[in-house]
Amino acid sequence: MDEFSLIHRYFNRAELTSNTTGVNLGIGDDCAVVAVEPGRQLVQSIDTHVSGVHFPASAPPNLIAYRALAAALSDLAAMGGKPHSFYLALTLPRADQVWLEGFSTGLSELAVKAGVVLAGGDTTRGPLTISIMVQGTVPAGGALVRSGARIGDDIYVSGTLGDAAAGLKYALAGQVPDSVGDDREAWLLERFYKPSARLQLGQWLQQSGATSAIDISDGLLADLGHILESSEAGASLDLEQIPRSAAFQAVIEPELHNHLSLSGGEDFELCFTLPSDLELQFPDFCQVTKVGRIIKAEGIIDQATGEPVQSRGYRHF
Amino acid sequence: MDEFSLIHRYFNRAELTSNTTGVNLGIGDDCAVVAVEPGRQLVQSIDTHVSGVHFPASAPPNLIAYRALAAALSDLAAMGGKPHSFYLALTLPRADQVWLEGFSTGLSELAVKAGVVLAGGDTTRGPLTISIMVQGTVPAGGALVRSGARIGDDIYVSGTLGDAAAGLKYALAGQVPDSVGDDREAWLLERFYKPSARLQLGQWLQQSGATSAIDISDGLLADLGHILESSEAGASLDLEQIPRSAAFQAVIEPELHNHLSLSGGEDFELCFTLPSDLELQFPDFCQVTKVGRIIKAEGIIDQATGEPVQSRGYRHF
Repeated sequence: MDEFSLIHRYFNRAELTSNTTGVNLGIGDDCAVVAVEPGRQLVQSIDTHVSGVHFPASAPPNLIAYRALAAALSDLAAMGGKPHSFYLALTLPRADQVWLEGFSTGLSELAVKAGVVLAGGDTTRGPLTISIMVQGTVPAGGALVRSGARIGDDIYVSGTLGDAAAGLKYALAGQVPDSVGDDREAWLLERFYKPSARLQLGQWLQQSGATSAIDISDGLLADLGHILESSEAGASLDLEQIPRSAAFQAVIEPELHNHLSLSGGEDFELCFTLPSDLELQFPDFCQVTKVGRIIKAEGIIDQATGEPVQSRGYRHF
Repeated sequence: MDEFSLIHRYFNRAELTSNTTGVNLGIGDDCAVVAVEPGRQLVQSIDTHVSGVHFPASAPPNLIAYRALAAALSDLAAMGGKPHSFYLALTLPRADQVWLEGFSTGLSELAVKAGVVLAGGDTTRGPLTISIMVQGTVPAGGALVRSGARIGDDIYVSGTLGDAAAGLKYALAGQVPDSVGDDREAWLLERFYKPSARLQLGQWLQQSGATSAIDISDGLLADLGHILESSEAGASLDLEQIPRSAAFQAVIEPELHNHLSLSGGEDFELCFTLPSDLELQFPDFCQVTKVGRIIKAEGIIDQATGEPVQSRGYRHF
């Protein structure tokens, strides 16, 4: 099967390409053509997932696709972006039709849910690697950046932390959500393979006066660290408040709780800051927990002890 | 070296990031933020180059980078786009500093020449793979697409064809432009590693009434074939007019001339169509040659014999 038939068959399908808001010309020319509404700016990010590094080579293709797109969309969420489209650079060893059908199905599942259209891409032969570029818009000048946190702001996180790191353990053992007998293990695996890009929350925060945000890809300590560095501030964390799921608490040894929920990567939850005098009613998108405060200090301090909390985020090299 | 130090050292350098026209926020947050001028639309494309597939694993890193960016920019040229920025997803086995310095230098060389800024990216560990997303703008509604060719239009190509396919032969033998004794072989190698993205020509064509354009990545026959399919027309080619360089003619056996210049890929020249009654004076950007005409037919006909010309473009799988 040549590249053109492959694209047509697996990627130029209605679920992936029919929602054309903002995309004037999608798959099938040298470039996609995109219009941006007056008064809005683009937010965009590219993310790569490599077989054997970011997911087990044997992982089901629908889950590989879902996870790669969710991770990319999470960057849009962290900027408060309203997503509209994405571009897929897919490198794969051979045009395996069963694999491609699964991949395309997982991609479509999330694309429909998130309201994004596949607007272009490239397929090449080589070791399995997936790069996804996502694109959305924000009101001009209104992107939620890392650098806006101010002394006294409250620090929040969405969802629960450490679940993906816990799920990774089962994923590395070759397990998939459907095959695991234990419901809690299956749920943690699902959190690894199908993270929730917090797109609604991100857009709501963008409109509600949040001062900074980041998505948690390398662990809370590492990613909060980026906010602190950009904002030239420190943080005091209430470690008792770090949100952990029931499944996580049931199956993970207590001595690993702090490590996995503070430094385990790839939860793709949001960490964000809000002025403490804002009286906000969080909408019902997902759990939101206050975990600390921006302070005038270097780095991250344990609120209970006053001691520094060491960051041990994922190192890429 | 962690990802953040690596990005800072090799990619957040002035030559790559200082020309910030249109990019409000570049490297260093979850997303880049980009503004689009009123009355313009975005054109954008993603391209992947895989070690051992698109270039020899031993190729010098500056040439790998140059070629990957040139190939991506060529898609903008084919839409008549004015380039402004690009995003780099770089997967590499290890953070080899000599290699990264070379890669960054080659990338900077072309980025400065083309006037594009590196606005974001992702670095990951894995088999050497480079995906580049390029972004530019066109006047709203004015993108040069594949589907606009009309019966009677003249067909043109830029530059000379077959040089990259000829240069590939030397590249596969492990040669680089600086090490080759024969000037003609060195020049062909240079055409392989440093193709010219015809950005100025593309923008000029966009403003001058061109009806369609494509960049020649899979060979003239295959890529002209895409214009014909999209435009629902055929073409008559004057094979005597196919432009070939002196170096190509000197070192390539005559019986391969047609094959390499019609079906050899990766020249990244433009193939475009113009109404035959337009009396245009081509600017002096590069050689431009009329090679045929759009006709009412199926496929591509040899003007001299009236017989079909067979396409044997590069097959990706």
